[in-house]
Amino acid sequence: MGRWTTTVFSFSITATDGAARRGVLSTPHGDVETPCFMPVGTRGAVKALTHRDLEDLGAEIILGNTYHLHLRPGDELIARAGGLHAFIGWPHAMLTDSGGYQVFSLAGMRRVTEDGVRFRSHLDGDLHTLTPESATDIQARLGSDIAMVLDELVDPDSAAAPAMERTARWAARARARMLELRSDARLAKSVLVTNTGQAQFGIVQGGTDPALRTESVQRTLAVGFEGYAIGGLSVGEPVDVMYDVVAHTAPQLPAGQPRYLMGTGMPDDLVACVARGIDMFDCVLPTRNARNGQLLTRQGVISIKNAQYAEDLNPPDPECGCLTCRRFSRAYLRHLYVVGEMGAAMLNTAHNLYFYLDLMARIREAIVFGSFEKLRSEFHRTFSRRPQQSR
Amino acid sequence: MGRWTTTVFSFSITATDGAARRGVLSTPHGDVETPCFMPVGTRGAVKALTHRDLEDLGAEIILGNTYHLHLRPGDELIARAGGLHAFIGWPHAMLTDSGGYQVFSLAGMRRVTEDGVRFRSHLDGDLHTLTPESATDIQARLGSDIAMVLDELVDPDSAAAPAMERTARWAARARARMLELRSDARLAKSVLVTNTGQAQFGIVQGGTDPALRTESVQRTLAVGFEGYAIGGLSVGEPVDVMYDVVAHTAPQLPAGQPRYLMGTGMPDDLVACVARGIDMFDCVLPTRNARNGQLLTRQGVISIKNAQYAEDLNPPDPECGCLTCRRFSRAYLRHLYVVGEMGAAMLNTAHNLYFYLDLMARIREAIVFGSFEKLRSEFHRTFSRRPQQSR
Repeated sequence: MGRWTTTVFSFSITATDGAARRGVLSTPHGDVETPCFMPVGTRGAVKALTHRDLEDLGAEIILGNTYHLHLRPGDELIARAGGLHAFIGWPHAMLTDSGGYQVFSLAGMRRVTEDGVRFRSHLDGDLHTLTPESATDIQARLGSDIAMVLDELVDPDSAAAPAMERTARWAARARARMLELRSDARLAKSVLVTNTGQAQFGIVQGGTDPALRTESVQRTLAVGFEGYAIGGLSVGEPVDVMYDVVAHTAPQLPAGQPRYLMGTGMPDDLVACVARGIDMFDCVLPTRNARNGQLLTRQGVISIKNAQYAEDLNPPDPECGCLTCRRFSRAYLRHLYVVGEMGAAMLNTAHNLYFYLDLMARIREAIVFGSFEKLRSEFHRTFSRRPQQSR
Repeated sequence: MGRWTTTVFSFSITATDGAARRGVLSTPHGDVETPCFMPVGTRGAVKALTHRDLEDLGAEIILGNTYHLHLRPGDELIARAGGLHAFIGWPHAMLTDSGGYQVFSLAGMRRVTEDGVRFRSHLDGDLHTLTPESATDIQARLGSDIAMVLDELVDPDSAAAPAMERTARWAARARARMLELRSDARLAKSVLVTNTGQAQFGIVQGGTDPALRTESVQRTLAVGFEGYAIGGLSVGEPVDVMYDVVAHTAPQLPAGQPRYLMGTGMPDDLVACVARGIDMFDCVLPTRNARNGQLLTRQGVISIKNAQYAEDLNPPDPECGCLTCRRFSRAYLRHLYVVGEMGAAMLNTAHNLYFYLDLMARIREAIVFGSFEKLRSEFHRTFSRRPQQSR
């Protein structure tokens, strides 16, 4: 048994441009070109899109949320169905979070000890416990291609050191459990492991303190994982602070392993953090904002409900090649949004995710051609986070 | 100027089998093979499906609701955008109802006179008037390929004769207005007519009384339209009564013109009424029921929320070739429904509409091959309206 690696999961860098890296993640459910963006499919479905839509958009990997799937329909039921890929009918790569993020968001409904987190379900108030070991087992049953360790999250104003230290201790326990599941076939069978090629990623914490981040990197590397995530960012800190933490942390991670920046971000964040050496991203913004009528364009965000679009026959983004922009006008999308048609969420989501996935494709191409810095400066020059006031 | 026909709308029968007819409706936005089922796109969108999904399902014509579109976004706005086809991005055929059905459903919020119907919007209480002439103008602005005359609807327990007679008088006024729009280019321009090839259908009323139906047929034919609808059915009467009214009425309509049974029905109703000479159908059942978790199968309806499907890895209908059945299990669809994912409505709607549209395709094929009676008896033998109690 390889100590740190599974037999089927691998990562290789195929080109670099400055600190930006192009690579390929090989998983039991296909290859994923990086840098990549992972659409969020919380409960086994990306909201308002079918799997076919996602495939057409070029999504090679999606994210599932362990907390939600553990509660409904339950990870044991999913394991009996053959794992998450079989259960939801998605044959491509998937990553699952540890469930920790959702649990730590349940303010007042959870209690943290060294053992793990006790929490009450937001659905029925039932008491559950999540430990580094059980989070590993749940994800082993789900059978995602990449499982995340349970980490301790604190709000940005709390002291980051104790949570970073506990995260490191939990990482060692999660890894020990994972190696046990990999080496003990009888245990794996009793736990209902559904994907023997599952990789496990550690998570670097430490808030915004460079020294703590460095210590977290060292302690997480000492445990050893197939890949490494940077957690605890995009939680309200200024965007420059986030960029600085990424710039400080990413270069300390092993060059030959994937780096995943959790829960980030806006399109310009993706460009900025690829420039700082990140390979993987996930974020609910493109899908959630789509359902709220916020559409991304080359020039920035437009709010489709605004009256100014009532008779605007232009596509959301005249430069965009997505199915929504090729067929529908701002006027029609505004109408669908205003009357509350489900189609508004569907067409807006398809557009926003195309924007993200197309951006990642252009980033990958630019890295190969050595023109990433040009793409980056051009993108930051034209894209604005603020809603457009006029066309 | 042709007196009854537009230059571009035509209908031809290509095969018959008993009273069942196969034909082709030619419209300014493409041909429609009949017998056909028209998915309902109330506000310019079939709920939970994209236009691309509809095209993949083989839908050649959809229905839009005049009442809803008149209120929001408004028929004048739609006309300024070039008409409904341009506004919603649907290049294929469309039929619009007159708006009457919705208005007459606004119990207590409408008042009927010989002139028309005054009603209050269900959205803001604003006062509107719908007359035979204004319903014609509104649909001329929408520019559907088939416009319906305004008819008077009464509940099944009221006397049918006065409403039938008023419908006949209104039909003459609606037709006169339509012919005026067709012959007077200046008027057409001031009204904002967007589809000069629009056909107009009359509606036969008369409740369940054969004599009244016959009289209504005669009076409607005397006005003369491009096609004829049978209205006032599927409003609560026993299904056999509906079949009898259709069997009585359809043969009295001109053999060379399309016959449309409004608002019907369940799949077995479609088979039964094709057998009685109907060419066109529309109904909200497949789409509305899909959103309520009711899935059609060859054996009948299943309610996907039932606990019995929690671990059922079979597709909704093992004999079905739709995208939903080819990829997803009952267990997954139940999960999506139970957790309230939009994907449940999307996948269920795609399945139910496939069921309807595939059934119509099989009916058309059977008529050509002279095997429609075999299809009909087989269908009635295996399909049950009642929910399945077990697989």
